[in-house]
This record gives sequence, structure tokens and C-alpha cells, in this order.
Amino acid sequence: MDNQQLLTMVTQMTLEEKVAQLMQLAAPFFEGAEGEGQITGPMKSMGVTEEMVRNSGSVLGYAGAEGTIAVQKAHLKKNRLGIPLLFMADIVHGFKTIFPIPLAIGCSWDLPLAERSAEIAAREAAVSGVHVTYAPMVDLVRDARWGRVMESTGEDPYLNSELARAFVRGFQGQNLREDVQRVAACVKHFAAYGLSEGGRDYNTVDLSEWQLREYYLPAYRAALDEGCEMVMTSFNTVDGVPASGNTRLMRKLLREEWGFDGVLISDWGAVKELIPHGVAEDEAEAAYKAIQAGVDIEMMTSCYVHHLPRLVREGRVEEEIIDEAVLRILQLKERLGLFERPHRGADPEAEKEIVFCAEHRAAARELAEKSCVLLKNERGVLPLARGQRVALVGPFAQSGDILGPWSWTGSRKDAVRLDTAMKAAAAEPGDISVAEGSGIEAMTEAQWAEAARAAADVDVIVLALGESSEMSGEAGSRADITLPAAQLELLRRMKALGKPVAVVLFNGRPLDLRGVYDTADAVLEAWFPGSEGGAAIAALLYGDANPSGRLSMSFPAAVGQIPVYYNHFSTGRPLGAPDAQERYVSHYLDLPNEPLLPFGFGLSYTTFIYGKPQLSGKIMTPDRPLELSVVLTNAGPAEGEETVQLYIRDWVGDTVRPVKELKAFAKVRLAAGESSEVRFTVTEQMLRYTHQNLEFASDAGQFSVFVGPNSRDAEELRFRLEKGPVTSGIRLQGASLGNNQHEQMGSEMR
Amino acid sequence: MDNQQLLTMVTQMTLEEKVAQLMQLAAPFFEGAEGEGQITGPMKSMGVTEEMVRNSGSVLGYAGAEGTIAVQKAHLKKNRLGIPLLFMADIVHGFKTIFPIPLAIGCSWDLPLAERSAEIAAREAAVSGVHVTYAPMVDLVRDARWGRVMESTGEDPYLNSELARAFVRGFQGQNLREDVQRVAACVKHFAAYGLSEGGRDYNTVDLSEWQLREYYLPAYRAALDEGCEMVMTSFNTVDGVPASGNTRLMRKLLREEWGFDGVLISDWGAVKELIPHGVAEDEAEAAYKAIQAGVDIEMMTSCYVHHLPRLVREGRVEEEIIDEAVLRILQLKERLGLFERPHRGADPEAEKEIVFCAEHRAAARELAEKSCVLLKNERGVLPLARGQRVALVGPFAQSGDILGPWSWTGSRKDAVRLDTAMKAAAAEPGDISVAEGSGIEAMTEAQWAEAARAAADVDVIVLALGESSEMSGEAGSRADITLPAAQLELLRRMKALGKPVAVVLFNGRPLDLRGVYDTADAVLEAWFPGSEGGAAIAALLYGDANPSGRLSMSFPAAVGQIPVYYNHFSTGRPLGAPDAQERYVSHYLDLPNEPLLPFGFGLSYTTFIYGKPQLSGKIMTPDRPLELSVVLTNAGPAEGEETVQLYIRDWVGDTVRPVKELKAFAKVRLAAGESSEVRFTVTEQMLRYTHQNLEFASDAGQFSVFVGPNSRDAEELRFRLEKGPVTSGIRLQGASLGNNQHEQMGSEMR
Repeated sequence: MDNQQLLTMVTQMTLEEKVAQLMQLAAPFFEGAEGEGQITGPMKSMGVTEEMVRNSGSVLGYAGAEGTIAVQKAHLKKNRLGIPLLFMADIVHGFKTIFPIPLAIGCSWDLPLAERSAEIAAREAAVSGVHVTYAPMVDLVRDARWGRVMESTGEDPYLNSELARAFVRGFQGQNLREDVQRVAACVKHFAAYGLSEGGRDYNTVDLSEWQLREYYLPAYRAALDEGCEMVMTSFNTVDGVPASGNTRLMRKLLREEWGFDGVLISDWGAVKELIPHGVAEDEAEAAYKAIQAGVDIEMMTSCYVHHLPRLVREGRVEEEIIDEAVLRILQLKERLGLFERPHRGADPEAEKEIVFCAEHRAAARELAEKSCVLLKNERGVLPLARGQRVALVGPFAQSGDILGPWSWTGSRKDAVRLDTAMKAAAAEPGDISVAEGSGIEAMTEAQWAEAARAAADVDVIVLALGESSEMSGEAGSRADITLPAAQLELLRRMKALGKPVAVVLFNGRPLDLRGVYDTADAVLEAWFPGSEGGAAIAALLYGDANPSGRLSMSFPAAVGQIPVYYNHFSTGRPLGAPDAQERYVSHYLDLPNEPLLPFGFGLSYTTFIYGKPQLSGKIMTPDRPLELSVVLTNAGPAEGEETVQLYIRDWVGDTVRPVKELKAFAKVRLAAGESSEVRFTVTEQMLRYTHQNLEFASDAGQFSVFVGPNSRDAEELRFRLEKGPVTSGIRLQGASLGNNQHEQMGSEMR
Repeated sequence: MDNQQLLTMVTQMTLEEKVAQLMQLAAPFFEGAEGEGQITGPMKSMGVTEEMVRNSGSVLGYAGAEGTIAVQKAHLKKNRLGIPLLFMADIVHGFKTIFPIPLAIGCSWDLPLAERSAEIAAREAAVSGVHVTYAPMVDLVRDARWGRVMESTGEDPYLNSELARAFVRGFQGQNLREDVQRVAACVKHFAAYGLSEGGRDYNTVDLSEWQLREYYLPAYRAALDEGCEMVMTSFNTVDGVPASGNTRLMRKLLREEWGFDGVLISDWGAVKELIPHGVAEDEAEAAYKAIQAGVDIEMMTSCYVHHLPRLVREGRVEEEIIDEAVLRILQLKERLGLFERPHRGADPEAEKEIVFCAEHRAAARELAEKSCVLLKNERGVLPLARGQRVALVGPFAQSGDILGPWSWTGSRKDAVRLDTAMKAAAAEPGDISVAEGSGIEAMTEAQWAEAARAAADVDVIVLALGESSEMSGEAGSRADITLPAAQLELLRRMKALGKPVAVVLFNGRPLDLRGVYDTADAVLEAWFPGSEGGAAIAALLYGDANPSGRLSMSFPAAVGQIPVYYNHFSTGRPLGAPDAQERYVSHYLDLPNEPLLPFGFGLSYTTFIYGKPQLSGKIMTPDRPLELSVVLTNAGPAEGEETVQLYIRDWVGDTVRPVKELKAFAKVRLAAGESSEVRFTVTEQMLRYTHQNLEFASDAGQFSVFVGPNSRDAEELRFRLEKGPVTSGIRLQGASLGNNQHEQMGSEMR
């Protein structure tokens, strides 16, 4: 249907039909769904009538080809105008083939593999009848207490933006209408959910608009620039107003300034939550504020259906606003081809064939290998030698809880466990003796005795420790982010046996590694690695694969240091400045300012040597970028992959500027002994930032570019940006000398 | 001199003389000062010439009647126009008579005593030649890691504002010109320094303008409304721009919107720090940005003197801006009467007589008694009975380090130590056996053996534990805010002796009391109590005084819970709501949301019983406030003082609103068995807040008022505010229904 036909359809709809189109409910409300009618109680308590369900526009959290086809068929029979349902679901890091959690994917720095993971997730979901995924989640995160850091790709706006684009490409493909094995993406959570105060989920967010634009918005914007179809509101406040009722954020910034004309959906229950937030007295006011803000779909509450018709009839809400919202939803259905093919990719045959197929699992394993980060490796503990006797101990040694949060469609029993994979990878399965050692939170003496026996005759101990998946994810905030005491005790006791100890960590956040990093000889951060996690880790432990992950989020030295992140500002009294005093600098008395492990950090089994980087000149102009080159040599014993990272620093700004900002990176695979020249183009666009007046522009002046293996150890070169007639002396206007180009943030989006 | 004469004086000054008037240097730069010439090196490195010193306008950190008189005399001989110097110093919580630290004064909730403490500080400082104190510090604080929380009065805008006013009244008196035993006050640090990220001093601050206005600005504004003469810039950024170069904050908000026409001084070195902050390329640009922002006096760096004359001559800075700054400084000197009495209160005779006099010390003792907070008292450990044998153990048992940071003019050897006071207070000095037990950070076995001996034959153990004064204060941030491990070990061992243990805490911040609160039978928070600290604590321990302090800042359950404060927002998924789910609410998996001890909390040796509070009506209008009354009964065995606290909640706002906000309190002293009716007027003004559009107004609607002993245990009553014609149904405009009155924040200040 063309847009005129869609407009006509809107005019044919009754007000009640329109408003119901804006309601999203879970599957049990619908005829033909598994669990149908199970929530008769909730249906009643929500006051949702059969008529409302018949006219509703979308379904939440349902998948399976046969089921979705049945629901769609039943719906089309009853819906007066034959408007198909949209099936939406949280397909976050895989459907049945579960990939590593997004924070781990962030550590891969591997855009093609990230895109491939989203494509596979889309294919499996699409043949199972899903049309839209609530992903990618691109919230910038700086507080490891927050459980949803696992769902983000980390603390850097650039890396997050690149991954946001990759995920959107992977989910949506090039032609959503024709390629029915893709799904529409819904970028979330708009905006700045990652700044939840105290790392406590759903908590207040407060930040300046300047910081919002400079750090927090770019990744959402990148997803939209890539064509992401939908946006989801965040639970939190921005400027004192919950996002789902925030006209300034949604109507003014997202729609008018950025020109986003896709569907905006609330997060689960977030429209009604305007009441407990304290900005709406009742459901009617919640409906009023959300629709005014531009929220098209209300997820799982019924403020719209119960109140918008009356508000429109009373003249308090203009019907045009409703019409626009409905039109956007119909346009999305049209772009997905649902009017022609209401079941779209749903296909029981294809479902059996491709869901969790060997090819997909191989991709999951590859990404898991690339996502693990080797944090420490002393005394040559890793890689293990074949023939070594290994004790594999710990609550994750035999656990299937390695998929991580947001993997509802995955199955733990299908996951490749570490013990299985280690036995398969060892020279002889008998080389591996396995014991639980402790639970997640507690250790019995019987567990310890078994672990001690398992370790009695071995050459090396591998301890599989971590957080259960419930300890992160939504509502999974922790105030203390160490490993549980029982596991620290297990590690202490195992270490006391006098044998080399390698720890493999399964977890959803950067941890406070006191008691681990200082105790173990080697630490491999495996995150929640997904369906093929055990196989990937076994390959890394035995050196069949070489660790190449790099941290996408800093590991704090302790929780009391949070927030700690690499791209902070200098302050007026930076620690370590040449003329810094001992006391009167910005520091803690009892901890360094630096995290335990910085953004970008990760070890390899081989050794990469950086040559002296060269810059093609000392002066950049907007038309004349600089070329940076550096020779990278694999000086170690194994083939390996290095992630060469390029950071910049703007020494003087209209506002303060970060001490380092990632602007480019390159993944380079080198055989042992091989060298390669790595080249970057350093452009004026990389130097742009948000000024006091919210302009996005660069300033002439002094800059540094850094290149190296992580955000801490990169080598510095200086250059100047010159613009227009060369200015001399001081920049007296204070304000930017930059241009007024708004290419990244301020322009119309489409 | 009248203003015309001052204007004439400005016209008589050369440009260099004017600019030098804006420079503030430490005393050793000046002829006649102690330590004169000691900083020849720094003088040279700063490029400060004798001519600049001769023309400079003010001196930093110098006191003593004879010394200041000598410096002023020498200066007037050399200064061409005979412009006297201003002597400024950090007189924060007393001069020689040291009062408790401001955070402790905040816990007294005693405005008359707070005012009296400032008056005494002013008198002692004034006779010692000081004209201006860099106080009060009124930064709102929510992060106990920050060392300067000791210098603030806590986490509440209202309590901070009331104390700001009290301090300003105490410092300045009614007539600064005539009452030469007062000093001008300088409110600091403008603005929002207390939000330093991660509690790390000097670190970045970022917040919305909405939050800035609603929570952070009111206390500065209150000080100015009270007539505070000066303002000091903060070290931090606001909206990405350091305060000392922040035109929007200083020129637009402070000067234009608020109408502040007094002297604005930078914090120490903060003008030059625009360079390391990264918003100025060099000293010239730093000078340019600071003077444009409206900073009149540059403290301890020399960007102005070296660059402003040239910038004016080159036409880059208008000379009028310099003239205005100079005029403001001259006006302050005139208001202080310095043109007529250049030595003002400086008086060697009066200095001997009143500095640290008995009357002042008695006031310090009284305030110390009122500032201590009894946090726990089980098994009837406190008060001690006379005749009991007491072991007084711990690093603070015999320590003079009880004055706290910002007490440079005080003397530790003059401080009344706890051991001295306890021996004096006991029935027999021999009832008290004293031992150190441990140092601040370490315990030797010899110390332990001595402590065990001291405790061998006693009835009760008093442990004096805490942080050294260097562990808080400026640049005294800690990432871990527990007591040092050695002291926790000392407590554990003493407790294991099986005797009752009372802990007295000396510290500059709310601590993480794990290992203390759960172990000791009684805990008395003494903060840094000042010169008479030991005497005050002994009186409280023996029941000669009854503890009445109430916390001005929450004690977190653990550092991982920070920021935790009582006046937070509700969120969309509040924990404990009637329909809250178990998991999907705003909470930590491992800690409650509530602090260990809430704002307003404190125990007494007697028991106060609150009757059922009564409200005079259910409907308030702007013209018809409500009366709240509650009968308070002292049902316990001792005379005591209760702080009755009144909080409000606005259930629906244009923005989110705090779950509770302190709006009034009353201190009530009752004899054992006595009752009293306490009355409050609840007014529409109490219901005003900052809206999205930054208007300060109230909204019609539902409110609660709470009255009780602290922010957690207050009892709730509901009422409605109605305005104009009674509205019915939902408030559909979303925006405020309130008036446009700007009485508190938006009006002209004078």
C-alpha cells in the first residue's frame, strides 16, 4: 500500500480502533496463542475488552512460527479492516542461538561479527514469526553496579555508535520488505538510561543537556542514521521528566530536531508509570502526557485505550496526534510488508531448518572467542598444554547458566558447558577432573573436599567463577560488585594448594576483582558467552584460539571508585600534572584515580610491538586531514589479532574536553613474526564536539592523537587544526572558532 | 566615602593599579608580614613585581592584630591613592575558639547557636585583623566520599539555607561598618561543588539546570538574601565550563538574574586552573574568560595582572568591566569602613582579651554538646553511671586532633581531650583507665596488650575511634569510607571481652559503619567537636547533657549505595509500592535502598512520644495556610530536647518531586514527664518548586505533610492545595497551574 492508502485506512478507522492500534499486549491476550486466556485476571484488572484486543496493533514477547501464524490468522478474521498485528520481542543477543551478551560483543570490537550476530538473531526470530526486536540497546554505561550494563556495549560513544550501526544493519538488512528473514530494529532506551543514579535500576537520571548530547545521544543517533525503524523510551527521568512523558526530549529533540518519523514505543508499563513517578495524577493524565510527548505505542498498560477516546472527544487531545501515531504504525507494517504477507517470515519448515543450526552455532562460537578478554596471564599458565592434568572447579564448571540475561528464547540445556568442552578439547577426557567447589553464594565443606580431591594430582587448576545470570540484567543491580565471598574463599583455598590457578569469569558486569586479580595467576573474562560458550573458552584455554577481546568498559579498582571511565575530563587539578601538589589534586587518599583495568585493555598469547607512529604533518585543515601510520609487529610465538586504537585529545575547548576519546580502531591479524603498517586518516570531523551553545563543531588549536593497544598505553603525537585565515595569539572570543555544521547531531535525519 | 567618591577614585587609578587591585596574594608577599619574602621564589616564578604588590587589593590567610596592622601601615605608605588592603581568611568553624565542624553544626539544627558560633568566630578574627571570611560553605552534599562534606551542613536545601542565613548573620551582624568586630562573609562555592563526581575532590560536576536550581542553588541564594557580601567560585565545571570562567553561571545567573553586585572571588588558583581544565590556552585566555564571567578577584595566581592591561589596550576587554570589578572591591572596603579605619577591628589588647576567652569556649562546648548524635544505645550502656570503672581506649582517647580540618588558627594543644575531660567528669579520676589501643591505621600487639590491661577490671569500655583530620577536608576524599581495619579489629577484640562497649566516633563524614554499628552496644557520633570537644563528650557520656543532635546527612549502609539521601525522587518503580513486583523495582539485590541511618535521625536518653498530629483543614489555598499541631511528650526519665521535623510531599508535579522535603522544624526542650503542643503553619510557599520552564511556583493538587522525629519515621497527613476557581478532573495542560511568582529564586535580590 502506498502512503495515500494508509492515510485512507486511518480515516476509515473509528477513534476506538485507532487508539487500540496504539496498545501493545502480551500474547496470552490473543486468540490462538499458547497460554491464551491465562491472564484473564490481568485482562479484567486492566479493563481490556475483547474489542480492544481485536483492534490492537501489536503483540509482545511471542515467538514460534506456528503460534504467531495462528494468532495472526485469528486476528485478521476479527479485525474489521484486516490490519495485521506486529509481533515484537526482546531478541537481544540471539534467538535460539545465543551469542555473548552485548557487553561482551562490545569487547570483540568486531563490527562484521556483531552485524552477523544480529543477522542470525533476525533470521531465527523472523522465521519464528517475530517482526520487530527491542534492540539494539545502546545506552552509554559508566556504573558497573547497574545490572543492565550487560546489555550495553560499554562506556564509549564511538564504539557504541559503531556497534549500534552494525546491529541495525544485521537486524534489518538492506530491504526489510523483501528480506522477510530480517526484523525491524528498535533502538533503546531513549535516553540516558545508563546513568541511573547509584547504578540502581530505574533510578533517577540527571545530567546537563550538554553532556546528554556529547556523550549519551550519539549512539542512538547512529542507530537512526543507519535506518533503525523504531525507538523505545527509557524508564528514567531526563531534566526531571520521565522519558515517556517528556515532550522536550521526544517531540522536540527526537522528532522535530532529528526528524525521526518512525514508531516510538514506551518501555514495559512506562506510560502508566508516569503516575508513580509523580508527574501524572491518574491514567488519563499519563495517557495525555505520553501521547503529547509523541509516544505511539503504549506497552502493556491501558491508559491510552481507556482515556484517549474521551480526551479526544472532549477536545483536550487533537485527533491529528492520534492519527499521526496510527499512521506511523501502519507505515511500519507496510515497510515490513505485512499487508501483503501478514505471516511474513514465519515458516515452520524454515524454523526447523535454520534455528540453532550448525552454521549459526559456529558464528556464536566465533564471536564468543572474540569476546573473551584475557586480563592476566603470569607464570605462563595459559595456554594449557595438551596432556596437562587439569582440575576444572567452580560453580560454572558444569553450569548451563552461561547464556546470560535476555536470552529467554535460548535453552541452557543446549548450551555447551565448560566441562564438556574441556574434556573434548583435552588430549584425553581423563585429563580433566571436575568439581563444583562451591555454589554461587555458598560453599559446603563437602564441596571443598571434593574440589580438593579433584585438584590433588593435577598440574594446573582452572576455576570457573562468577555471577549467576540473575545477578545482572534488568533489575539486577548490585551495590557490592565483588565475587560472592564463598567463591573468593574457594579461590584462596585452591591457590593455597600451590599450583598454578587460572580463573575463568562468567558475569554480566565489570567486577571489583580484589581477591581475584591479585590471587590468580591468570584471569580470562568470559562474560556470559552464549550457547557455544564452553567450546569457545576451551579453545582459548588450550590455545586453539588466541584471546583478542579488549574491554569495552573499565574494571574499577573498587566499587568506591565508581564512576570510573577513560574519557573523563581533566579537572583543574589533575593528578600527575608536572606541577601537581601532593595533596591538593583531584584524587582519593586510598585508591588511584585509574581503574584496575582500562577501557580497551586485553592481553594475547602473543606479543605485539608498536613502532614509532608517524603523522603526515603537524597542521590539519578541514580540507586536509592527516595520515597516521604505525608499524605493528607480532613479536611473539603465536598468530594473533590486535586491536589498534586511535584516540584524540583537544587541549583547549569552549567546554572542557575529555583527556582521551576513541575515534578509530583497526583489527589486525598477524602471524608470528609478521609486521604490518596500520594507517588511519585523522580528520577534522573527529575533532567536533558539542559547544556551550550546543553547536557541534571543531575549534582551531592544539590536539593530540594517540595510538596504541588500549586507552592507557597509547603513544601521543601533537598537531594543530587550522581553519580559515590563520589566527595568531589567543582565541579571545571564548566561543568556538568552528563552523556551524551540524552534520552529526543537529541536522535533519533523513 | 560615598559612591561618587569611589567612582572618582577609580578614574584616578591607572590601568595597572586597577588590575592589581583585582589580585589577591598571600601575606609573605607583603612588607611587614611574618614570613615576608619567604616566597621570593614563587614571587619571581609568578612574575609578581613590587609594584604589583604595592597596588594589590587584598591579602589571603593572614591574621594577628599586630601583624595585620604592620602590613596595612606599610601598604598605605606605598600605595599611591592610599587604598587599604582587605584581609581575608578561611575562618570556617571558629578562629581560635574552634567550634564543631559545619557538618556537625548542621546536626545541631540550632540556628541561634550556629549564628553565635559565627559571631564568635567573627569577633576573634576581627580583633586579629581579618575583614572577610571565606564562609559559609553551603554546598549541598550527597556523597560521603567527598572530604569536604565536613565543611557543609549536609544534604538538605532547607536546612542548609537556614544555616547559611544564620552564619551570615553571625559573621556580619547588623552593621558591618560600625560593628568592627564582625567580618564580611563570602558564601561558597558557587556552584554545586558538592556534586564532585565520585566524591573525588575537584572532579567534574554535571547536572541539569533544573536540578541545579531546585536543589543546589537555594542555600547560596539564602546567604545572599541575608546580605552576604561576597561569593566565591567553585573549582568544578557546571554545564561543561569551570565556574571561574562560566559566563552563564556568573554573569547571567548570579549577577543579572539574581542582581548580585558584590565581590566575586575565585577559589585558590582557580583562574589559572582554566588552563588545566582545558578551556583556556594560556594565562591570557584564562584572564579573559574569568573577567568576562564576572570574577572580580583572582586568588593566588597572576593571570589578571599580567594580561588584562594588554587585553584592555588591545581593545579585547572593555575597560568598563575592569572598572566595575574595581568599584565593587572599593565599595566593599567602604562598607567595611576601611577608608576611615584601615585597621578596623585589629586590636592587640582586645585580641588578648577575647580570643579563646572563657565565654567563647563555653559557647563552643554548648554547640559541641548539641552537635553530637547518639546513633545507637542498647543494654542501657549510656549514660555512664558515676562510680563505674571505665576503660577509655582508642586513637582518639588522648588525641588533640579533634578540631577537624579548616582550623588553621586553632591549636590542638588547647583542645580539651577526651581523657582529660573524662577524668574530670568521673567520680574519681582513677575510675578511668586509658589506653591507645591502636593508631588510626595500625595496631601493634603492644598497644593491644595495654588496652586489654586497661579493660581488665572495668565495668564498661568507651572506645574513641575515627578518622584523622587529614582523612577529610579539602582533597581528603576516600573511596572506602569504613573505619580503618586496625580500629575495627580493636573494636572486635574489645567487644570479645564481654563487657559493654560504647564507641565515640571522631570523623569528618558519614561513615560506612559496618563492623561498628553491628558490634558496639552504643555509638555516639562526635564528629570533630572542636576546642571543647572532650568536655562536651564527657558531659554527654555521663548524662550531664542529653544528646540531641540529628543527622544532617544520611549514613549509607555501604559505600556502594552512594548517593543515598532522603529527598530522592520516587522513580516509576518504587520499592515497597503496594503493587510492586519482587524483582522489577528500583532496588539493589544485595542492599536495601534506605541508608543505615536517615537524615534527621538521632537518639536521646529520654523518650519522646508523638501524639496524633492534627491538621486544621483538608484544603489549603494560597491565602489560607493550614495549621499543623502535634502534642509531644517526654515520656522518659530525663530532660531532653527533641527536633520536631516537618516534611511535605507533592504527589503530582510538572516535574518529578521528592518523596519528602524538609520544610520546617522546631526544637523543643521538655522536662521528664512534660508535654507540649508544637504548631507549624503549612503554607503555599512551602509547596513551590522549579518547573520544567524553570518557573518557581506551586501546583494545585494533592499533598502530604509529615511530622516526626526524623525523615523516616514521620507520620503522614493529606491535604489539597486549591488555587483560583476549583479545578476538577485531570490537569490537562501538563504545565503548572501555579502562579508566576518568583519570590524565592527569580526575583531581583536587593
